[in-house]
Amino acid sequence: MNVTALDALMRPESVAIVGASTDSTKIGYTVVKNIIDGGYKGKIYPINPKANEVLGLKAYPSLLDVPGKIDAAVVTVPAKLVLSVVEEAGKKGVKGLIIISSGFGEVGNKDLEAQLVAKAKEYGVRIMGPNIVGTLSNAEKLNASFAPILPLVGKGALVSQSGALLIALDMATFTRKVGLEKLISIGNMSDVDFADLVEWLDKDDATSCISLYIEGFKDGRKFMEVAKKAIKPVIALKAGVSAHGAAAAASHTGSLAGAAKVYGAAFQQAGVVQATDLNNLFDLSLALSLQPPMLGDNLVIITNGGGVGVLATDAAEKFNLPLKFVPKDVQEELKKYMPEFGSAKNPVDLTGMAGYDWYHDSVKIAFSHKWTEGLVVLYCETAMTNPMEIAQGIKKAIDESGVKNKPVIVSFVGGEKSEKAMQWLVENEIPSYSAPDLAVHAISALREYARMKEIVSEPEDKLNNIDKLAALKVIRTAREDGRDALTEIEAKQVFAAYGLPTTITKLAKSEDEASALAQEIGFPIVMKIVSPEILHKSDAGGVKVNIKDDVSCRDAYRTILKNAKEYNANAHIHGVAIQEMAPWGTEVILGSINDATFGPTMMFGLGGIFVEVLKDVTFRVAPVSKKSALRMIEEIRGAPILAGVRGEEPRDRDVLAETISRYAHMIVDLQEEVSESDANPVLVYQEGRGLKVVDARIILKKK
Amino acid sequence: MNVTALDALMRPESVAIVGASTDSTKIGYTVVKNIIDGGYKGKIYPINPKANEVLGLKAYPSLLDVPGKIDAAVVTVPAKLVLSVVEEAGKKGVKGLIIISSGFGEVGNKDLEAQLVAKAKEYGVRIMGPNIVGTLSNAEKLNASFAPILPLVGKGALVSQSGALLIALDMATFTRKVGLEKLISIGNMSDVDFADLVEWLDKDDATSCISLYIEGFKDGRKFMEVAKKAIKPVIALKAGVSAHGAAAAASHTGSLAGAAKVYGAAFQQAGVVQATDLNNLFDLSLALSLQPPMLGDNLVIITNGGGVGVLATDAAEKFNLPLKFVPKDVQEELKKYMPEFGSAKNPVDLTGMAGYDWYHDSVKIAFSHKWTEGLVVLYCETAMTNPMEIAQGIKKAIDESGVKNKPVIVSFVGGEKSEKAMQWLVENEIPSYSAPDLAVHAISALREYARMKEIVSEPEDKLNNIDKLAALKVIRTAREDGRDALTEIEAKQVFAAYGLPTTITKLAKSEDEASALAQEIGFPIVMKIVSPEILHKSDAGGVKVNIKDDVSCRDAYRTILKNAKEYNANAHIHGVAIQEMAPWGTEVILGSINDATFGPTMMFGLGGIFVEVLKDVTFRVAPVSKKSALRMIEEIRGAPILAGVRGEEPRDRDVLAETISRYAHMIVDLQEEVSESDANPVLVYQEGRGLKVVDARIILKKK
Repeated sequence: MNVTALDALMRPESVAIVGASTDSTKIGYTVVKNIIDGGYKGKIYPINPKANEVLGLKAYPSLLDVPGKIDAAVVTVPAKLVLSVVEEAGKKGVKGLIIISSGFGEVGNKDLEAQLVAKAKEYGVRIMGPNIVGTLSNAEKLNASFAPILPLVGKGALVSQSGALLIALDMATFTRKVGLEKLISIGNMSDVDFADLVEWLDKDDATSCISLYIEGFKDGRKFMEVAKKAIKPVIALKAGVSAHGAAAAASHTGSLAGAAKVYGAAFQQAGVVQATDLNNLFDLSLALSLQPPMLGDNLVIITNGGGVGVLATDAAEKFNLPLKFVPKDVQEELKKYMPEFGSAKNPVDLTGMAGYDWYHDSVKIAFSHKWTEGLVVLYCETAMTNPMEIAQGIKKAIDESGVKNKPVIVSFVGGEKSEKAMQWLVENEIPSYSAPDLAVHAISALREYARMKEIVSEPEDKLNNIDKLAALKVIRTAREDGRDALTEIEAKQVFAAYGLPTTITKLAKSEDEASALAQEIGFPIVMKIVSPEILHKSDAGGVKVNIKDDVSCRDAYRTILKNAKEYNANAHIHGVAIQEMAPWGTEVILGSINDATFGPTMMFGLGGIFVEVLKDVTFRVAPVSKKSALRMIEEIRGAPILAGVRGEEPRDRDVLAETISRYAHMIVDLQEEVSESDANPVLVYQEGRGLKVVDARIILKKK
Repeated sequence: MNVTALDALMRPESVAIVGASTDSTKIGYTVVKNIIDGGYKGKIYPINPKANEVLGLKAYPSLLDVPGKIDAAVVTVPAKLVLSVVEEAGKKGVKGLIIISSGFGEVGNKDLEAQLVAKAKEYGVRIMGPNIVGTLSNAEKLNASFAPILPLVGKGALVSQSGALLIALDMATFTRKVGLEKLISIGNMSDVDFADLVEWLDKDDATSCISLYIEGFKDGRKFMEVAKKAIKPVIALKAGVSAHGAAAAASHTGSLAGAAKVYGAAFQQAGVVQATDLNNLFDLSLALSLQPPMLGDNLVIITNGGGVGVLATDAAEKFNLPLKFVPKDVQEELKKYMPEFGSAKNPVDLTGMAGYDWYHDSVKIAFSHKWTEGLVVLYCETAMTNPMEIAQGIKKAIDESGVKNKPVIVSFVGGEKSEKAMQWLVENEIPSYSAPDLAVHAISALREYARMKEIVSEPEDKLNNIDKLAALKVIRTAREDGRDALTEIEAKQVFAAYGLPTTITKLAKSEDEASALAQEIGFPIVMKIVSPEILHKSDAGGVKVNIKDDVSCRDAYRTILKNAKEYNANAHIHGVAIQEMAPWGTEVILGSINDATFGPTMMFGLGGIFVEVLKDVTFRVAPVSKKSALRMIEEIRGAPILAGVRGEEPRDRDVLAETISRYAHMIVDLQEEVSESDANPVLVYQEGRGLKVVDARIILKKK
């Protein structure tokens, strides 16, 4: 990425407006006016071949006629003229274009859009848009957009894929009293995309937190890579989580996928905090732009009223940060600042009598104590106490504590005085909310952010005993055979090449071969038809289990072949697979899909009713570290089954996690070849006894 | 309930303040001042033995000295003086007391509180409190409280069990711009409780919706009965849902219960809408106080921006009201009011170009159409359109449609202009919210309200073939035996008396009896130890299944007795139960707990891992109608198992529902005797083939 060009685009020393107009009904007029009104200090060059002046500024016939250098140009001319503007911009040495003009990809005009990008690349020009509102920056006092005003000053940046929403949210910063440093409309993302902006904003001194309104990525992996490395918190509101159901793939694993779940997994893996809705996006942006992450689960809640204390306690459990009692020594100290009927346990209830002093002293004690890892201070407005004094008491205590690495969040419930006090707190960098559960939700996001960052920073596993060439050889054979589906034996060979423990499975092409292989593997055995045309082997009468002797083996061989021919007279029959019969274990499923946005994606779940009835499956964009795989095993609803229930011994989760990690490595390694796959069932045994992949399926990408 | 006295208490023509003070630091001063400042039109009598005048009003030494009648008296004197005030009030004929004074049950002083109530009953005086903030009514312009001001005028009433929260929410009505008709502090509920207030407010012309902040009920069933009958919507925010885990009962069924789940079930059964948090309580109160219930699932969303449309679509799915495309004829009509690139499907996207006309015309068409059962109108503020005009267009269209029985909810995202437009809409009785998901959440509550009311209005089932006397006889025998636990045979006899299909189970007291009973029942049979001291029969080696002939039966008899004696040498052994061996079916569990708040409560879930690992169980306060039981069967996560999965036939849900209903009837009928019980497992067969209770347990109440 050309950071220099994006720098110039985002922090230009001079801006041209191509399509600048003297007609106040035109966007080309509005943009010039907005740049002037915003207070931009750089040079402004209106470009208009027919006017000498626009809004009091000298106008130029073209970019090439401008005497000085131009860092960025806003383009508002009709779509059909934009390509020539790009050409001119390139020749002039303009670094970046903010193309407001619409009429490109969004109305099916993809070729023209591609031409813009190609032309811009030729000259090293970066493009924002097309089809955008523009970009707004308080730091630059630059409103290069047709949104009416720079947002209320704040510390976070918001990038929006919806232009209409961006304009509305711009105005909403004033009524919500939550400011923004930057508002960026991303539009068609023909060139600059979410990943580019996250990378750039992460280095922008004026921005402390990056919020994204996302309808969809063009390249999910590029985004993940950048977000993983970001130093600043990234928050995403993903819209359209319900619409994707229809696009579910045809295969068994695919139909369980659900794009929303994969997006959720990707955000988690990249350390991106997910907002639940529009208000929450604002709420979290406030918290994450002002406060550090919460590094442990020890949350203290201080309140002056039982009611809000109880509601906050409920919320803490709901948001995965259940309260614990504070240590006795803290309780003893806190008891000094409350009447007899107060409570020092947690929530710490100072009672309605609490004023400046009690708030100040108890906040200072709680926040300074090493046990505390995060603090929520609640206040329920009373007629006897003054919200602003309470706010000042809280702020003073935090400052005096000298503690910088823990978050504090406040909620005041009350009227105008409380609102003003909260406003003051926000100005003093303490996020404040109008309801206790919002404060708890915000601090839980700071906790979740820290948890995710811990996973993101884990080093990747080194996997040995991987034979990619062997796997590719199996795949090539199938391709040469004109097949897109591997047989079970082939799929197991591929799995085995990546170190997945599979049941011994060999191909018998005759009754005698079957008999010999059975002897070699050892009874009891399982026998299955091997035919690329017969995928549902059981339905075809092509599976016999628990075969205990040679006579039964020979008998089964003949029966399976006969059944298969009756089932599908045209099927190519490779023979019969002779497999060791794995002892029974806990059934799990591993699988992969090729997600449209994120590519190779790993699925894991318990088998049987868990997957079929409860859809109890979890996803990760591959690769998946072993630690991440352990988290997958822990986060399904059926997790207790693997941990051991009803006195049963725990299953071998360690080997299972390694197997998931190896599987995920495999689907990344073979992503050019494999479309989807599964290992179903996989039987998992007691701790120390590993697992066995009993059946396997790999579908190749069509070439 | 004495409605007349409560009427006088809530709408008094005259109010006395016992403890009225001239000292502005006293609550007795504040209350008098608040009543005057609120603009109360009735007579005000300060009671103070030491003052002639309080705040310009003539003061009287005691209630008995007041010349005219007194409807209500506010009491602010110290706790120890309150009893004599009650006595005086009774003598004076005061109808109701608002006892602000604290120092009663909440600090353990329960006797004094009980004395107040007893004394008040003597005279027919109703008590609000003690330990309350007071009551505030805009209709009466009466602020009989120490909360500083009457709330912003609105249509809903709020009853709060937290006084501190009540004061804070009072002030918050002005900043939130959501008014309230009444604010009532309920405190210790020594006399007037939630049920009384719901009943009274339901008949109060000034109130259109009843909101409750609840920490706990004293009598859950009384509340349910009243709420079921309420004509007006009742909304509950239950606090303390996380704290109850610790109180879980010791038994298997009990430990699954969780008071929060039972509260949730009770609210549903009583048609009470549950708020998720404090803001949601305000949001839902606004919607339910202004709009009718939504009678079907056909929701139409009209928007001017894709972004908010997508967010609303996601929210609709989240809140159980997924969008469907509107019928073709509506689409054709709507297409007239949008550009080519708009969408008439649903969400209806008028695009950013939509102004007054398009909004007006499309809202009118959509709202008037018979298919539509609810409408959400979204607007994303643009620089080109005027929020107030859009609001007026929406309002005019709704009025012109003449439709009264469908709800409409609005959300504007934007700045100050949007806020003002929404304020105007609320004043015109159209609820409006600052984010699209809030609007969808609100309309989903109107839908849920209608769904619940439909269930509540179902007539109760008539159950025949019930022999309560037979059940009581079995219980009496056990009691006479000095036992609190019935044996399996006894429990099955009780179940059978209520028409539950149980496996035939008879008691053999000798090997020969066992042999004879086995012949009578028919092989194969199951044999189990019967001893009040051996509850875990399998652990004691006391169970033998699939016994196919006489020899095995005799053998089993001896083995079981031997094992039992080894297991517990002191156990009283009644003999061995000989049972028919039920064919295998789908395992479910029925059970009952005696909930501290709601009494006999029914539990249902699938057996095995569903109950043990997934805690996939659902509750209903008994009795449970058959239709309600069918909903229990449908709402567990494992519901597809009973509906038939993997090509299996559906289970006999009809008989299962009747069995649940009979079970629930039984636990109500025997509530004086039965503490907890379960039928586990119950085996459910294919449709038309019924079910069998295979094992049974009943624990009696200690007497």
